[in-house]
Amino acid sequence: MKYDKLTMSAGPAEIHPRVSKAAAEPILYHYDPAFKQLHHGVEEKLKKLFLTSNDIIIMQGEAILGLEAAAFSCIRPGDTCLNLVTGVFGKWFEDFIHMYGGKVVEIRKDYNSSITPEEVRSAFEKNPDIKLMSVVHSETPSGTINPINELCPIAKEYGAITLVDSVSGVAGSEVRTDEWGIDICITGPQKCIGAMPGLSLMAVSPDAWQRIAASNPARNTFLSMLDWKEKWLTHGAFPYTPSVSLIYALNAALDMIFEEGLEAVWKRHGDCARACRAGLKAMGLSLWPESEFIATDCCTAFKIPEAIESASFIEHLRETYGVVISPGYGELNGALLRIGHMGHTAKPMPVMTALTFVGKALRDRGFPAKIGDGLEAALSELY
Amino acid sequence: MKYDKLTMSAGPAEIHPRVSKAAAEPILYHYDPAFKQLHHGVEEKLKKLFLTSNDIIIMQGEAILGLEAAAFSCIRPGDTCLNLVTGVFGKWFEDFIHMYGGKVVEIRKDYNSSITPEEVRSAFEKNPDIKLMSVVHSETPSGTINPINELCPIAKEYGAITLVDSVSGVAGSEVRTDEWGIDICITGPQKCIGAMPGLSLMAVSPDAWQRIAASNPARNTFLSMLDWKEKWLTHGAFPYTPSVSLIYALNAALDMIFEEGLEAVWKRHGDCARACRAGLKAMGLSLWPESEFIATDCCTAFKIPEAIESASFIEHLRETYGVVISPGYGELNGALLRIGHMGHTAKPMPVMTALTFVGKALRDRGFPAKIGDGLEAALSELY
Amino acid sequence: MKYDKLTMSAGPAEIHPRVSKAAAEPILYHYDPAFKQLHHGVEEKLKKLFLTSNDIIIMQGEAILGLEAAAFSCIRPGDTCLNLVTGVFGKWFEDFIHMYGGKVVEIRKDYNSSITPEEVRSAFEKNPDIKLMSVVHSETPSGTINPINELCPIAKEYGAITLVDSVSGVAGSEVRTDEWGIDICITGPQKCIGAMPGLSLMAVSPDAWQRIAASNPARNTFLSMLDWKEKWLTHGAFPYTPSVSLIYALNAALDMIFEEGLEAVWKRHGDCARACRAGLKAMGLSLWPESEFIATDCCTAFKIPEAIESASFIEHLRETYGVVISPGYGELNGALLRIGHMGHTAKPMPVMTALTFVGKALRDRGFPAKIGDGLEAALSELY
Amino acid sequence: MKYDKLTMSAGPAEIHPRVSKAAAEPILYHYDPAFKQLHHGVEEKLKKLFLTSNDIIIMQGEAILGLEAAAFSCIRPGDTCLNLVTGVFGKWFEDFIHMYGGKVVEIRKDYNSSITPEEVRSAFEKNPDIKLMSVVHSETPSGTINPINELCPIAKEYGAITLVDSVSGVAGSEVRTDEWGIDICITGPQKCIGAMPGLSLMAVSPDAWQRIAASNPARNTFLSMLDWKEKWLTHGAFPYTPSVSLIYALNAALDMIFEEGLEAVWKRHGDCARACRAGLKAMGLSLWPESEFIATDCCTAFKIPEAIESASFIEHLRETYGVVISPGYGELNGALLRIGHMGHTAKPMPVMTALTFVGKALRDRGFPAKIGDGLEAALSELY
Repeated sequence: MKYDKLTMSAGPAEIHPRVSKAAAEPILYHYDPAFKQLHHGVEEKLKKLFLTSNDIIIMQGEAILGLEAAAFSCIRPGDTCLNLVTGVFGKWFEDFIHMYGGKVVEIRKDYNSSITPEEVRSAFEKNPDIKLMSVVHSETPSGTINPINELCPIAKEYGAITLVDSVSGVAGSEVRTDEWGIDICITGPQKCIGAMPGLSLMAVSPDAWQRIAASNPARNTFLSMLDWKEKWLTHGAFPYTPSVSLIYALNAALDMIFEEGLEAVWKRHGDCARACRAGLKAMGLSLWPESEFIATDCCTAFKIPEAIESASFIEHLRETYGVVISPGYGELNGALLRIGHMGHTAKPMPVMTALTFVGKALRDRGFPAKIGDGLEAALSELY
Repeated sequence: MKYDKLTMSAGPAEIHPRVSKAAAEPILYHYDPAFKQLHHGVEEKLKKLFLTSNDIIIMQGEAILGLEAAAFSCIRPGDTCLNLVTGVFGKWFEDFIHMYGGKVVEIRKDYNSSITPEEVRSAFEKNPDIKLMSVVHSETPSGTINPINELCPIAKEYGAITLVDSVSGVAGSEVRTDEWGIDICITGPQKCIGAMPGLSLMAVSPDAWQRIAASNPARNTFLSMLDWKEKWLTHGAFPYTPSVSLIYALNAALDMIFEEGLEAVWKRHGDCARACRAGLKAMGLSLWPESEFIATDCCTAFKIPEAIESASFIEHLRETYGVVISPGYGELNGALLRIGHMGHTAKPMPVMTALTFVGKALRDRGFPAKIGDGLEAALSELY
Repeated sequence: MKYDKLTMSAGPAEIHPRVSKAAAEPILYHYDPAFKQLHHGVEEKLKKLFLTSNDIIIMQGEAILGLEAAAFSCIRPGDTCLNLVTGVFGKWFEDFIHMYGGKVVEIRKDYNSSITPEEVRSAFEKNPDIKLMSVVHSETPSGTINPINELCPIAKEYGAITLVDSVSGVAGSEVRTDEWGIDICITGPQKCIGAMPGLSLMAVSPDAWQRIAASNPARNTFLSMLDWKEKWLTHGAFPYTPSVSLIYALNAALDMIFEEGLEAVWKRHGDCARACRAGLKAMGLSLWPESEFIATDCCTAFKIPEAIESASFIEHLRETYGVVISPGYGELNGALLRIGHMGHTAKPMPVMTALTFVGKALRDRGFPAKIGDGLEAALSELY
Repeated sequence: MKYDKLTMSAGPAEIHPRVSKAAAEPILYHYDPAFKQLHHGVEEKLKKLFLTSNDIIIMQGEAILGLEAAAFSCIRPGDTCLNLVTGVFGKWFEDFIHMYGGKVVEIRKDYNSSITPEEVRSAFEKNPDIKLMSVVHSETPSGTINPINELCPIAKEYGAITLVDSVSGVAGSEVRTDEWGIDICITGPQKCIGAMPGLSLMAVSPDAWQRIAASNPARNTFLSMLDWKEKWLTHGAFPYTPSVSLIYALNAALDMIFEEGLEAVWKRHGDCARACRAGLKAMGLSLWPESEFIATDCCTAFKIPEAIESASFIEHLRETYGVVISPGYGELNGALLRIGHMGHTAKPMPVMTALTFVGKALRDRGFPAKIGDGLEAALSELY
């Protein structure tokens, strides 16, 4: 949050100066004991964040890498995989299932809704050979969530490995990896954690490692999760040079989360999301998700008013007022707009600022946004 | 270079505060026009660095990713690949050739020597079906270079694609991508460029793209070079969220290179390497490379004196004097030590400091290092 | 402007990260040619800021030092000095006049009003022996300005030296030192310039130097303006070690002003001040100055609503919402509150944020602030 | 210590990045409770540094201000003041004594020597009406110290107030304010403390306050120590806007001192000073102080070799090698050169670096510096 620019996109999110400054600390040789110790410390902090006692690995690429690596590592040709689709990212994962030889069983819902436990149970009943269930927790492009706390236990009941893409969920919403039976939980530093993009943060259960070992995927490839286990976790040797500075930043962001308190961080995201929704509604806008109950806490998706063109609106908002938000992604482009509130932008000041100027820019384009009402409504939710 | 710590490892190298501070600039949304423009600017600067008019792609993972991606993209099952081996990294690449179905023709020399043009020509004469030649330009673990200016033209003469791992070569030594016929030239930001680890910087020739297109490798995978061409270079869409902060740092480091002048940067690395070698020799140590003519400019490898144990020596040097250097890597561990001089550590102050304290630590361990003589000899080479 | 704290006090103001980072640049020896060149560069930029060709001196202490130094340097015992008083700082200067032996002729108006040209002319007519006229341009504690463009020429007409305290005026409002006949113009870096407190920035005319020379004040004292002229301006020797880092920050802040354009910076302060006043009025509050025509551009003073206690309100606003504003100063404490908008806080985002949370905090304390209306009104003035 | 510049002047000294970064923290309003608390915390840390339970005041101007303020506050017209002179700064203080009406009794020695207890006792015997003794502890221009631990108790014995200029002594050498009977001890942040110039740090005893109260100097002047006591220490009101950022930096520097341990910091300065002297001597140079016993720990003064011109040598050293040292100051200009080792430059790396390049630059100018011998000798003293 500078004086004339505020990035409230759907991610990567703006980060706190303390986190950015951490990235600027002097580069350590990755085999300097000081760096190895720092790396292990980050792993321990991630366990606390994921609420897990599972292994943590940090792959060097944003979460798309982690997702592909999970598919590469877990799926044997012919494996049946249940994939839940409520948005663009859910659908995308099927590419990886196909690429690594799996057969897809899909539950697909409209991109403004979410999957129910009954639907998952029914799929398992019909397909008892499902080996893996993949689900996006917080579907950023749709602004929605899936109830992974209910869905994953069902999959575990049927003996499947659960793979959760919680890239924009972890830190912004409650995620209890072990309690909920998540075998591979993937998140990214650049959303609610409030650090820099470029890493896949993964919690991997013994069940998952067992399956991967049985799959016996290739080693010595950038896609290998096993390299991290066999080289780094077991022998203290990095598979390749890690992103030293990004690890520094992640470490600082995690420290800030635990200083504030994890539950407080969740609550802050929830409050800001509710305020953002209330503000937009009071201005006269319509939310994208079919129900606020399934709205994600990391960003708010709302329908583009008639007659406003997405790209030029976003450019106007940025050029004139300095506020950056995101358009719809993929097939949702043109249908909705998204205001991110993640990490340190999930705070009253940036949320109120974003609403103020989004309202003003909409009015400039002919939509009669009731800005004052919107800001009053948002304030009411925040305090 | 702080007041009590100096990292002169074989990389990642310490970076200039101006570069670190660039990484701490506020995170931009990757589709903010300001970021897209910055990214394109970095590509243009990399063309100047590689001395190429080829396409530039920046993959999100350190150069091991770029190398694997090149193998993944270029090699069809059954392709004969000539691989030149003068060190650990040269040998490593064969894993990728095998993984993606290639047949290896290997020229292997001792790890303190280099490949000659005659050896390459002879290999092509014997194996006229070689489709790709892979070579490490600056073999950091061995402290040596291969004469890619002579080797690549021979490969091109025989119609092969040339793949050069110049991770620790580019910016530290003369590399003329187009003039020397390098089809895929790969470097990393974390060595002589003086930026942060976490990226593969690649210059890709039309011949390489043509071969890749003919190979028709899978798209939508983290290993895909084509995704970068087809999505980003052609349509302005990132295949995934890029490492925004690392791009900032790279941009700043490239600016510093061109402000100083590329040839001046090469010269500075050469001068510091020569001084480091002269200093060590005058102290009574022996260099690892069989001839100084093939010593790389990015780091100096020297033989561990009898009776000194590598790991504990390195720890003593670090703990007592704050200087961090690298042990031998892989099978060379225990045989040699390496002082890096890359990016902004390739300057007189850090080089003299490293020599001073390496000498002192050696003497502590019983080796009668002639420190004064060594420093005098180094100074003589620097000025 | 961080994510949960915004300081909109009456100064020192928050500064731009670019300015703070400049202060963190490595300390130079003050006689390093690089520092001397930088210092002279800052003097040249200050000439552009003051719109003057007079000498610039930078004394090491906030503007109270500059004001005392001016009194020390210019006033001989028995000199008649016309002092204009419309607020706390105007009154304060009389202490210095008395301390250095001057006789005070005072024009005093209520602290919510300003001095007229007629009043000044009349004072000169009645006191033809006035040697010096002192006036506060922007009286921060009152939130008002005096029309120095009209007042100073009158004093010059009568042969007096003019001394203008424009600590919170320069950079926020039009100040034309030479055109308006200001002999000693004093400002501070910590208000509208947007740099750090700790310096007195002074433009000194030939007439002022002549008078000072005639007064022949002591040299070699921290209060001496002549030391700066005779040692630094004439011989390049600093009277004492300057505040190297504060000069760096000032330099960066001045660069930012000229990159934006001085007139644009003035306009921005004016726009933000008008918006702040409109917002407060629309919320139901009353401004302190008797007329908006004399409201200063650097901060907005408004009356404390009945039944709200100043100190505890300010603490509530800070603790609960993270916004810091200023109470009344000196004898105005308890009567008014002040929202600063100076330097980079004189921008729409901080102004809208301050209004939002000041409104909310007032409502918490029982004042029925019409927040929505206030924000709408402020927006209307900004765009 | 950057990669190509090292400032080892006699001050201001280079500072640690942690300290510089502290100065870049967001500006707080000086009446923000967070700032007031920080300021009081700094005062407490300064008590630990001065080893005192006396009041601490922090005046806004480098130590010349503190020295003048002490003279202004303590000296009544006609007071006899004993001033000890072993260098330029000692002599300078007499200007202040004269300015504020005191009569000077001077003990002056050659500028490469120091004052003995006998000399002081004899002066008191001859002048029983001495009210104040002023002495420079570490006379930076001469590179010498005076034994204040012995001199101050004598003055106290005769009922005088003791004023010690320990600008470059405190933090670099043992100073025990209370134990040694120092009534007003003045230091600066920019020397051995390792922070930024622009402040006078003063410990003031009850005896000193009593004398000042009796002197009843003017209030409301920048020179007033009493303003700080009566406004700030007593009522929490700053006499003027403090240098917020410089206080941040000072705070960080003090934290670093106590994390390391005050005695360890003293020892480090002593070791580095001894190494620097040993290095220069072994190169063939002569030290300036008549005995190493009285050499100060903050910088090393050595005689300029015949035929080397001071200013052009310093410029050559800076231009060619990036090392900045100081010439002689005042009347010693041209006779000696000074290498500072203060704060974080009082560490082996910068000291060895300075010696290396000073030696090289001397040799360039025709002096046959035995660089290797010098560096060996310095190393021997350091470890």
